Amino acid sequence: MEDLLKEIRLNEAGLFPAIVRDEKGTVLMLAWMNREAFEKTISTGKAHFWSRSRKKLWLKGESSGHVQEVKEIRLDCDGDALLLTVHQHVAACHTGYYSCFYRHLKKGAWNIEERKVFDPEKVKK
Amino acid sequence: MEDLLKEIRLNEAGLFPAIVRDEKGTVLMLAWMNREAFEKTISTGKAHFWSRSRKKLWLKGESSGHVQEVKEIRLDCDGDALLLTVHQHVAACHTGYYSCFYRHLKKGAWNIEERKVFDPEKVKK
Repeated sequence: MEDLLKEIRLNEAGLFPAIVRDEKGTVLMLAWMNREAFEKTISTGKAHFWSRSRKKLWLKGESSGHVQEVKEIRLDCDGDALLLTVHQHVAACHTGYYSCFYRHLKKGAWNIEERKVFDPEKVKK
Repeated sequence: MEDLLKEIRLNEAGLFPAIVRDEKGTVLMLAWMNREAFEKTISTGKAHFWSRSRKKLWLKGESSGHVQEVKEIRLDCDGDALLLTVHQHVAACHTGYYSCFYRHLKKGAWNIEERKVFDPEKVKK
């Protein structure tokens, strides 16, 4: 584990960004990891992150059940960003959309053409 | 432009991360933008970033010619990450690999199975 971690450059808060995509290449979200989140992700096979707002380790889907089974982990050239390929259960976004990137720029505004895949009111946060 | 920018949350350094992928869904790199980089990206149609090491605005490919023509821009749910879909000329990575994410975790080590698409010694930095 230390051999893997020594290639990863942490920022001043001890964190690094992780891009998450699914097997088809849809980019789902960007989240942050610390050493512990990285270790837990590898030991369990499920994506774990560091919540900067709640200041705690976070198993993605721990309350919603929308977990991410990790299929591949990639590291970039300068070792300061990770790319996870996952199997996403239900949806990545807490708003009900499959991907967090559901807004796209069109005619000078952020538009939404995606459809929600679940009703966030019916999922325990 | 202000209407677009007001949805984007800058960090304490005035920056936000931008994931870059190509039209096929290959994730190429993660880079950082400030307001000016975002504005230049939209006004020129070519990806611009903020170089944190050089502390300057940076047209991706300005010296190598490996520019990124922007096809789509997406914003995530909480407005703190951008996703660019681009047409990548030659390669995204300065090391010669097409994507910066050329290392992947295999049998407890970071492995490289990709092949370089250009010789970085022959490209002006």
